[in-house]
Amino acid sequence: MHIKECIVSAPGKAILHGEHAVVHGKMALAVSLNLRTYLQLQATFTSKVCINLPNINAFLSWDVTVLNQLVPDSEGEICYLALDIELVRRLRDFVGIPNGALDTRSMAILAFLYIYISIFAGSGELPSLTVSVWSELPTGAGLGSSSAYSVCLAAALLSASGTIPSPLSDQENTARWGVAEMELINRFAFQGERIIHGNPSGVDNAVGTWGGILRYHSGKITPLSRVPMLRILLTNTKVPRSTKVLVAGVKDKMNKFPSIINPVLDSVDAISCTCEQTLSEMTSDSPTPEHYDILEELIDINQHHLNVMGVGHPALDNLCRVTLARGLHSKLTGAGGGGCAITLLRPETEHSVVQNTVQDLRECGYDCWETRIGAAGVQDTTVLVPLGVDDLSLH
Amino acid sequence: MHIKECIVSAPGKAILHGEHAVVHGKMALAVSLNLRTYLQLQATFTSKVCINLPNINAFLSWDVTVLNQLVPDSEGEICYLALDIELVRRLRDFVGIPNGALDTRSMAILAFLYIYISIFAGSGELPSLTVSVWSELPTGAGLGSSSAYSVCLAAALLSASGTIPSPLSDQENTARWGVAEMELINRFAFQGERIIHGNPSGVDNAVGTWGGILRYHSGKITPLSRVPMLRILLTNTKVPRSTKVLVAGVKDKMNKFPSIINPVLDSVDAISCTCEQTLSEMTSDSPTPEHYDILEELIDINQHHLNVMGVGHPALDNLCRVTLARGLHSKLTGAGGGGCAITLLRPETEHSVVQNTVQDLRECGYDCWETRIGAAGVQDTTVLVPLGVDDLSLH
Repeated sequence: MHIKECIVSAPGKAILHGEHAVVHGKMALAVSLNLRTYLQLQATFTSKVCINLPNINAFLSWDVTVLNQLVPDSEGEICYLALDIELVRRLRDFVGIPNGALDTRSMAILAFLYIYISIFAGSGELPSLTVSVWSELPTGAGLGSSSAYSVCLAAALLSASGTIPSPLSDQENTARWGVAEMELINRFAFQGERIIHGNPSGVDNAVGTWGGILRYHSGKITPLSRVPMLRILLTNTKVPRSTKVLVAGVKDKMNKFPSIINPVLDSVDAISCTCEQTLSEMTSDSPTPEHYDILEELIDINQHHLNVMGVGHPALDNLCRVTLARGLHSKLTGAGGGGCAITLLRPETEHSVVQNTVQDLRECGYDCWETRIGAAGVQDTTVLVPLGVDDLSLH
Repeated sequence: MHIKECIVSAPGKAILHGEHAVVHGKMALAVSLNLRTYLQLQATFTSKVCINLPNINAFLSWDVTVLNQLVPDSEGEICYLALDIELVRRLRDFVGIPNGALDTRSMAILAFLYIYISIFAGSGELPSLTVSVWSELPTGAGLGSSSAYSVCLAAALLSASGTIPSPLSDQENTARWGVAEMELINRFAFQGERIIHGNPSGVDNAVGTWGGILRYHSGKITPLSRVPMLRILLTNTKVPRSTKVLVAGVKDKMNKFPSIINPVLDSVDAISCTCEQTLSEMTSDSPTPEHYDILEELIDINQHHLNVMGVGHPALDNLCRVTLARGLHSKLTGAGGGGCAITLLRPETEHSVVQNTVQDLRECGYDCWETRIGAAGVQDTTVLVPLGVDDLSLH
């Protein structure tokens, strides 16, 4: 069959406000992170399906004829509303992934094969192709590297199969799809996330698909209509932590001191609301220094609240101190207990200040990137060859 | 007239929980601090009244005959329920204190002369005597040095005049008065506080009088019936601050972000309640390590909340970090923005840990004392000559 080659990209995600509180029914603001995952899909005539994942040093290929035997009998309609548990089981057996194995490499392969077979199952035959993925996102850092990967897989394979049409180019030489196509991409990406994470909230793939800023409240995901793009530093303290243990710790504190902790969650909720309102004002009016003052103050207050919840860490305290010494405000993002933090940069923050801060943080042993939040969601960037993707087929 | 010589002492005070929140109708816990002020009253035959305040380098004396002319006409009943504004005005003129002057030396002299004349006015003639005061408390640090001074003045002068009888000795070779006498001491001390501070809450003199721990809520002061004595470090960062400016800053934050800050004040209120309950359990049962765990956790949470209110300071952050490195938990006490902090010591905290922590804090340039909270209130210590008081008459 003829398939359409493409290069797509999708952003990572960070939590701006509301981590942990969201577990207890409060609102959270999830934002796209302009550290992106790129995927190049090439048609081949080798009767092979190849996947190159240089970031995790995984390079695999399978014969199309062998994969054809795994296609479910129920041909025709593509099922994307529910995960085909039987297909997942057959793929696990085929690839040789032990039950219960959850390593990045196994999960990435499983998600790829699942989405590939789901999308092409209805077209009569599986095509030979090579998919190469390269990411600016660290894995396992709570920055949505798996969702960006799933979104890229869904967008590229749906596009290659002709299920969704070529997107229209916009003024930036990138192209995005219409709402219906985006929703389809998001649905398939969610299946990838379910394979990788078991029971994800759907926020990460929604951010990867739609970009910008999303409000998440009691299972409901609402993209904010217009959002400003904010410059940030994204820092990874590289202190390992367990999200499960941290979430349980907050629950324990709530049970131990309900009258002390519940008001703190209410305060976090109000921080998310105030932040949403401030961001909205920044897009309707011009952003002013006062808007940034408020954003900084909300960051500081929430960081204290997260410490109250017991999800801080000395490395995060140190990070906040180091950035504040340069006049910049930081908070942890995601689970905490180490992990990542965001530092807001103001429009007037000078390049030298940013450079010096990045250097300070790297001298602490942290990884640090200057990037933006509120960036575009999944994009077809075939017209532009993004940095680094050229090298992918060399691996 | 014959007067009775005595030596009395009164404790300083600290806020355990609820500073700032108390301004907005929440509960606070005020505790006595076993850094004490000592007062020695000696009868003389010089027809002079002398006051020696070596801590602030003030040594003054007046002729009794001159002071007699200042005694109000309305002889007889001692008025201690309201401040005699006319007497204060006359004393200001007499000592030569410009209107509006609020310096420690002027205020200390004014409070002494006011209480001295008020108490002896009804006895027909003013006695000649020498009062010497020495304190372990730094002045102007929010540790109740003025209230301890006022309480000592009231107790010693009421005792010297025979208005209150000699107290009964207790098992520790100190002596305390009955409830009625204590209330009278507190009333007179409050007039001293009004002269020094203008519009005090009355908490400081109550702590100085009753000792222990007091609940303060919406103007109502309630001593806790039984309280444990807790070992602490009391540290003065010596960073100067203005209580007025800090209180106004919290108010501004509340007006700016009511939905964010009001829950934090509710949480502080719950901290004070939980602390009161824990202290109560510690006296009814034996104190356990778990009780101390809770006290430490409350200290940490409140310190974060005070930072949210904007009354923290890098010197206080540093202090918390230094003590935590030794496994000890600290919070600011009082107005914040610098000033003082308390560090809880557990019963099992080893002497070497305490010594090392004190040394660490002194190396930061802070003053640091090992002391106790919940100590006894005003005491007659005539039977014991406390350290340092012997030297006072040499000045």
